[in-house]
Amino acid sequence: MGSGMARNLLRAGHQVAVFNRNRAKAEALAADGARVADSVADACSACEAALTMLADDAALEHVVFGSDGIAVSLPNGAVHVSHSTISTALARRLAAEHKHRSQGYVSAPVFGRPEAAENKKLLVVAGGPADLVERCRPIFDAIGRQTFSAGTEQWQANAIKVCGNFMIASMLESYGEAFATLRKADVQPSVFLEIMSALFGSPVYTNYGRIIAEERFEPAGFALRLGLKDARLTLSTADECASPMPVANVIHDHLLSALAQGQGDMDWSSIARVSARNAGL
Amino acid sequence: MGSGMARNLLRAGHQVAVFNRNRAKAEALAADGARVADSVADACSACEAALTMLADDAALEHVVFGSDGIAVSLPNGAVHVSHSTISTALARRLAAEHKHRSQGYVSAPVFGRPEAAENKKLLVVAGGPADLVERCRPIFDAIGRQTFSAGTEQWQANAIKVCGNFMIASMLESYGEAFATLRKADVQPSVFLEIMSALFGSPVYTNYGRIIAEERFEPAGFALRLGLKDARLTLSTADECASPMPVANVIHDHLLSALAQGQGDMDWSSIARVSARNAGL
Amino acid sequence: MGSGMARNLLRAGHQVAVFNRNRAKAEALAADGARVADSVADACSACEAALTMLADDAALEHVVFGSDGIAVSLPNGAVHVSHSTISTALARRLAAEHKHRSQGYVSAPVFGRPEAAENKKLLVVAGGPADLVERCRPIFDAIGRQTFSAGTEQWQANAIKVCGNFMIASMLESYGEAFATLRKADVQPSVFLEIMSALFGSPVYTNYGRIIAEERFEPAGFALRLGLKDARLTLSTADECASPMPVANVIHDHLLSALAQGQGDMDWSSIARVSARNAGL
Amino acid sequence: MGSGMARNLLRAGHQVAVFNRNRAKAEALAADGARVADSVADACSACEAALTMLADDAALEHVVFGSDGIAVSLPNGAVHVSHSTISTALARRLAAEHKHRSQGYVSAPVFGRPEAAENKKLLVVAGGPADLVERCRPIFDAIGRQTFSAGTEQWQANAIKVCGNFMIASMLESYGEAFATLRKADVQPSVFLEIMSALFGSPVYTNYGRIIAEERFEPAGFALRLGLKDARLTLSTADECASPMPVANVIHDHLLSALAQGQGDMDWSSIARVSARNAGL
Repeated sequence: MGSGMARNLLRAGHQVAVFNRNRAKAEALAADGARVADSVADACSACEAALTMLADDAALEHVVFGSDGIAVSLPNGAVHVSHSTISTALARRLAAEHKHRSQGYVSAPVFGRPEAAENKKLLVVAGGPADLVERCRPIFDAIGRQTFSAGTEQWQANAIKVCGNFMIASMLESYGEAFATLRKADVQPSVFLEIMSALFGSPVYTNYGRIIAEERFEPAGFALRLGLKDARLTLSTADECASPMPVANVIHDHLLSALAQGQGDMDWSSIARVSARNAGL
Repeated sequence: MGSGMARNLLRAGHQVAVFNRNRAKAEALAADGARVADSVADACSACEAALTMLADDAALEHVVFGSDGIAVSLPNGAVHVSHSTISTALARRLAAEHKHRSQGYVSAPVFGRPEAAENKKLLVVAGGPADLVERCRPIFDAIGRQTFSAGTEQWQANAIKVCGNFMIASMLESYGEAFATLRKADVQPSVFLEIMSALFGSPVYTNYGRIIAEERFEPAGFALRLGLKDARLTLSTADECASPMPVANVIHDHLLSALAQGQGDMDWSSIARVSARNAGL
Repeated sequence: MGSGMARNLLRAGHQVAVFNRNRAKAEALAADGARVADSVADACSACEAALTMLADDAALEHVVFGSDGIAVSLPNGAVHVSHSTISTALARRLAAEHKHRSQGYVSAPVFGRPEAAENKKLLVVAGGPADLVERCRPIFDAIGRQTFSAGTEQWQANAIKVCGNFMIASMLESYGEAFATLRKADVQPSVFLEIMSALFGSPVYTNYGRIIAEERFEPAGFALRLGLKDARLTLSTADECASPMPVANVIHDHLLSALAQGQGDMDWSSIARVSARNAGL
Repeated sequence: MGSGMARNLLRAGHQVAVFNRNRAKAEALAADGARVADSVADACSACEAALTMLADDAALEHVVFGSDGIAVSLPNGAVHVSHSTISTALARRLAAEHKHRSQGYVSAPVFGRPEAAENKKLLVVAGGPADLVERCRPIFDAIGRQTFSAGTEQWQANAIKVCGNFMIASMLESYGEAFATLRKADVQPSVFLEIMSALFGSPVYTNYGRIIAEERFEPAGFALRLGLKDARLTLSTADECASPMPVANVIHDHLLSALAQGQGDMDWSSIARVSARNAGL
């Protein structure tokens, strides 16, 4: 994800220093004009905004709170923009930490796969104080096709992100249940796929529906173990908000069952296999 | 639904006799060229195909198996085309009954609201022996924008229909859970609606999302008590196929709870209120 | 079940005529003093009370509404006492039918296995008009250890019966989930069994817990396919009462999945295998 | 809980130093022969075993890892025995920390209310290296009626504890669903209570059944917010073990909904109100 975003920032005329634990990945951006930083601290030094795009809470915590991390390296008045899909709890902790250090913090998770990042098609959901979000707008304009204001609390953007992922996961799970029932009824999966394409008129339904109908779960577009991580984030936000989400439980349980049966590295749409198995298929 | 479909058949040049218990409804079609029949038997006499569009299993059973019903009135060799959303069990019973009487039977449930029926925008899912479905194709072409072949067993079309309705209901339930959580997080519903519109690019998500975000559940586009009936049909097909559908259970339970709390005549998207209530909203 | 109940009626001094489609089963009771009837009608003729104990709704409907069934054979003023586990809907239909024919009807489902029937240990739940239930009390005293008055509507007794079975099934399902988690945690099943025995101090927990801990699902004490039938009865009562029962859904789905995977003839406590499988065991 | 346990240790002849943030609670034990410690460190000094009984993970972490906490104060070779209901994750962390400091650690959660603690009726589930558990046996014999060996990993005892609590919560939830349905069927709750008492023959079913039948949810025997904490612990153990527990999800969601509706300080059996509300009661 990060490299596509960085390239679009460069194309938009921003000066970009990049850091990745895997230096080769960072160096691939040098040709596009990026400066390759030697460390997180180096990347942050003298910047106006530090953008992070990491796999999970633990990775981001390490990069922010570690020695020579963003918290201690980011100049006063600069902004940390977190694009990662992280917990609402960590977003609140980051907001407090950066405020305490007279730095800005904006949560700006994105919807879209790596291709979307490459093609400037991301949807950006930005949360934080209005003036801070406004200051970061050139960044969002450079990387995405549309930016949405989540609210003045940073974690609200993360709440939206996990709820949005839940909406997609819910479609996958429902597809899985419907396809399992219809396969038991000897209906061709391709027929149901066509009908759902016509009914919803949504590329998301068409694309994922095809993967499930054809059971093409490898290679993974988005690994099931990451989908499970997201399901956990949804449930933990639901818990914080005291808002029960029973469909999110079903999703979590089926992803967990898929993991227990060795599907962690398949595409998360292989959640459909759990319903198939439960139907004796 | 029926009147829009009848009008499109007339427009396509078919001869149509119409019957409705409420004679006024039938007479409204006389101006468009329909013959107003005095009874089910009268409507069936000498026809090539009898089309039924009724509220539920009980209504269709009455019209087919009642004295002077379709079963005894339809000429040999003619076809009964059932467009209603009925149980797979009833579809199998109808297939057997009509076969026994040397009549044809095709299940052809449709996706689309009354406006879609009026505007020839229905999606038609046809199940039955291939030659029979082929013979009925002019009917489907007249009333819908696209026809899909479900399979050679009539009830397969009904299985697809209830699974399709399940996909929509699942979207409503998931929206309900997400909106409840986000309202507890003080996020504006309109923001999430906009993001989901952009993410799914589906008119179904945009339209239903707006109804739920704005809580405009009256007047009902599709009454919750009918949605509950459909949820029961989904679960009974799932049970027949020995294919557990946990999300369908959540939908059923939330519609049932909504009914118990007086929402039977609201739009079925008011299922979202159950999640809101469970979150203390 | 029926033979144990008949023997206890004979022991209590009642005159008993017995009928079973399998005549050998009926004849086994002749030595105990029963008259072996040639037909349902013969068994009913000149009796004060006709007791039925059958497998399901369909079997009871056949015996009551079939030609020469109980409805047409039972003398005026006599009582039909239904001990079967049937739907609340059928109980209402039976009450109406018998009333219409000036016969009495009492629903008196029982809790207990065949051994309990043999040993007069059944729990009897009786529903119907108070005077009718009172008239049948000598029957209940003869077959069970305790009789409970469900209410003046017959179907209330059936509602209690399906809810009671639900309580047992819920224990089985919960055991299944707990044992699966603990097996993944490398805890000896026998340890958890012992603790639950001590905690609940209930023979039901101890006996079923042992079967699940030791995975002795064959031969079946109570076949899983019958447990699934009962789960359906619970859900249909819940639906009628507009009272969502999410745990009953889980039970239904896991029994259904077990059926789909070939466990129909195992003991219903083998529902635990579904949780085990979902955990990758 | 703690004071009953301390008193039973004193009765058994052990020397006991007690510490409680609320000094009055500790002083109440002085008359029974306890030494009132001034701090955690003081209580630990020169002891053979430090017993902790605290409300949750956070409280125990504070007491163990805080400055002058148990970790730094407990003598080499002494044992920390944790009786609290804590997460399996924290149990593993404690095991590692104490091992690192050449101290012993045993997880020994208990089943039973404060009265049971007072009357030496607790069930003790002990996890840890066999020799360590053996060394602590005089403690367990002094405070409980029976001790069970969970396994050689400390967290296994905590896994058993959260699964045991789940079994009780599952009974409460199932009762709630059954009572709601039966109230809609106009069945007297007291009738179902009596039948369940006879069916299960378990004081746990009788006592909790009575509270729910009579809706006596205040004062709380065990507060719903603590029950919710336990539900979270169950789910987090299930997640770690990759073992889906759908009934645990239902319990969690209903407790969460109860919390959102202001029932946090009622008895946890008031989970039954959620099912009643969902049924429109």
